[in-house]
Amino acid sequence: MTFAEDGHAAIDWLAGYRERVKDAPVLAQVQPGDIRAALPDSAPEQAEPFASVLEDLDRVVFPGLTHWQSPRFFAYFSTTGSGPGVLAEMLIAGLNNVGILWRASPALQELEETTLDWLAQLIGLPPGLHGHIEEGASISTLAALAAARQARPGARVVVCSEHAHSSVDKACRLLELELRKTPADERFRLRPEALDLSDACAVVATVGTTSCTSVDPVAAIADACGQAGVWLHVDAAYAGGAMICPEFRWAFDGVDRADSVVVNPHKWLLVPQGCSALWTRRPEAFRDTFGLVPEYLRTPDSVASFSEYGPELGRRFRALKLWTVLRCYGAEGLRSRIRESVRLASLFESWVDDEPGWVVAAPRTFSVVCFRRESSDAENEAILERVNARGEIFVSHTRLDGRYVLRLAVGNEQTTEADVRRAWDELREGT
Amino acid sequence: MTFAEDGHAAIDWLAGYRERVKDAPVLAQVQPGDIRAALPDSAPEQAEPFASVLEDLDRVVFPGLTHWQSPRFFAYFSTTGSGPGVLAEMLIAGLNNVGILWRASPALQELEETTLDWLAQLIGLPPGLHGHIEEGASISTLAALAAARQARPGARVVVCSEHAHSSVDKACRLLELELRKTPADERFRLRPEALDLSDACAVVATVGTTSCTSVDPVAAIADACGQAGVWLHVDAAYAGGAMICPEFRWAFDGVDRADSVVVNPHKWLLVPQGCSALWTRRPEAFRDTFGLVPEYLRTPDSVASFSEYGPELGRRFRALKLWTVLRCYGAEGLRSRIRESVRLASLFESWVDDEPGWVVAAPRTFSVVCFRRESSDAENEAILERVNARGEIFVSHTRLDGRYVLRLAVGNEQTTEADVRRAWDELREGT
Repeated sequence: MTFAEDGHAAIDWLAGYRERVKDAPVLAQVQPGDIRAALPDSAPEQAEPFASVLEDLDRVVFPGLTHWQSPRFFAYFSTTGSGPGVLAEMLIAGLNNVGILWRASPALQELEETTLDWLAQLIGLPPGLHGHIEEGASISTLAALAAARQARPGARVVVCSEHAHSSVDKACRLLELELRKTPADERFRLRPEALDLSDACAVVATVGTTSCTSVDPVAAIADACGQAGVWLHVDAAYAGGAMICPEFRWAFDGVDRADSVVVNPHKWLLVPQGCSALWTRRPEAFRDTFGLVPEYLRTPDSVASFSEYGPELGRRFRALKLWTVLRCYGAEGLRSRIRESVRLASLFESWVDDEPGWVVAAPRTFSVVCFRRESSDAENEAILERVNARGEIFVSHTRLDGRYVLRLAVGNEQTTEADVRRAWDELREGT
Repeated sequence: MTFAEDGHAAIDWLAGYRERVKDAPVLAQVQPGDIRAALPDSAPEQAEPFASVLEDLDRVVFPGLTHWQSPRFFAYFSTTGSGPGVLAEMLIAGLNNVGILWRASPALQELEETTLDWLAQLIGLPPGLHGHIEEGASISTLAALAAARQARPGARVVVCSEHAHSSVDKACRLLELELRKTPADERFRLRPEALDLSDACAVVATVGTTSCTSVDPVAAIADACGQAGVWLHVDAAYAGGAMICPEFRWAFDGVDRADSVVVNPHKWLLVPQGCSALWTRRPEAFRDTFGLVPEYLRTPDSVASFSEYGPELGRRFRALKLWTVLRCYGAEGLRSRIRESVRLASLFESWVDDEPGWVVAAPRTFSVVCFRRESSDAENEAILERVNARGEIFVSHTRLDGRYVLRLAVGNEQTTEADVRRAWDELREGT
């Protein structure tokens, strides 16, 4: 079989998957070890046709997938690997460019610069920022806090709210920075008046926390950081995508003064996993941290490589998928999808609000609804496990003010009002 | 257009690319800023068809690509995004599973476990290691050294040879460890008798250095590390792939005693970029370093997530491309390709050896030949710039014993003897 023949078969498999995922159990209905047990103990000695891989994708892998592409995937943050994004991913692998320095792929580097400028414009960031793409927000935040540590020698404290993402904890462990989590206010936001920045090198403000998408007051935090000379990193991994819509732009008030900002196009902007955008107005701090060029990578080209701004040396041509998605949807197309997610979440919120025995547990800001049955934590947990085990929908949970809270996140491109309605029916059934 | 229609067009584009790349200039013949200047200043407001992206791939992107898939790409480490690997990458994006924890994708996690076991067997690692996949060796080495630092509190020195990869420097900067580079021996290997491990937390031994693919004496280093209680990390990012062939297995002598080992299937094992395998016999040190599970990711499943072993939280379904390549080539197919690369490099080495005025500058161990014209550094540098500018081949350089040295790396699946012959003709022309 030629590449083209196998390729057409792969496209057809995937086109089929995109249909049948709508009817599959959303959460994989397997036990730990099941998939492993279905696989041979060793790699084959002889080559097998690509068609065998597609067969085993159906037979072995499919039952072990939790279907992130299902329109009824409502857990964590619901995402979409859009058609154009998926095809671009194949092109990325097919070109297999490795961006270790400019001449290793001028198109990779300059398309990354360009698309990050495009995206910065779309979400209302100020002009002139230096942008690059990391694999995920954990690496982006690690890079940003490393630069912050470098920029303020001796200051070893990072401050964030109790609702900041666990990647901040992880980065601080790696960087051996002390993480000081401050209690949030009644709307789960960082309280800027509580900030003690005397020995801090950075504050992490979150626009759209993972638990409940609360929005820290960035402008007030930026005031405090500016006064204290402390690096402000804004984690907008999820909600940053919504900033393409002017009606949500209030949440970015003050972000123009951030030292670094992370937004993940792979979360809410239809780009497949592996695309985290990181901007900074202090690129020299990143180069001070990451900029080292060994002899075998020195060239006469007078262009700094992206490897000087983050922990990776080689980078995939991730910009190609961002470029493809921005073009194939257009700003307008992306806005309409963000708005539809928010509309559906708002609808779900209204149903919860209207239903006796249920309560909305946190203000809904974007496309995530936190809610609970007005009863014990145990009952709420039981509801979660019951609906997920049935496989019709997949939702996750968090804990707010000490209480177990259910979370419904809307964000998949295929999700319709009927899907959200089904989620609500599933949740109420048997309560 | 439907996904399938666009997809078939993308496959055809890529099938065409795989042919025409054979005739394209290998090194992009553009100046800094050229690609950027050819792109609009802003994202489009309205959606464009996917076909426009393919058109611009030809018109704008193609001239700015350095063709890593060209059979005459001999720079850095020559790699291959094989057909099955490329199609698997599309499937990864199409499924868009995000492995933040077991239930988020049991198949992702268990296929990652399984394929890393398969690969460990193929390259002769001992059974029972814990393996996982990172994006690249820079992140793998960062994770390993973080675990090493955690495992020996207070010891803040990392020891390696002067030929260790720059990712070791980068990781040490991030982890604030002191890096002590020891002078290599006459064959560019770490000298174990020179090791002072009194305050060391780790030694990095390299099997296949980037400059000249020299092999540090791992067994002797393992002895020293064992005695001193110091973590041994083995960087076999490039040469580890060759260990599938028994005749190269001598280079892994002692690696069974390493605390961690990194091998990049995306280098010499036909997997597209973004697949670095990291094994450890001390998984608990990784979990001590990276293991934190926030409330919103707690589940009743009693399975540790890969996110507890490295800096990422979400991970792509990278195992799928490794699985696909291992199956579609089989161990035998991979071995024959490794051997062909080595045969071609050996042939090139013999030509250099036989040619007056040229000299092999380092022992050739695998598929990389270091060589130079017996004249000034400036002339060698001029040769490099001349041949790369002509675009028929792309080679890179390094510096050994203070001298500028040319490097020819064989590793692309399509490279034939005629391609290597052409490289030699190009290099000699005009000298």
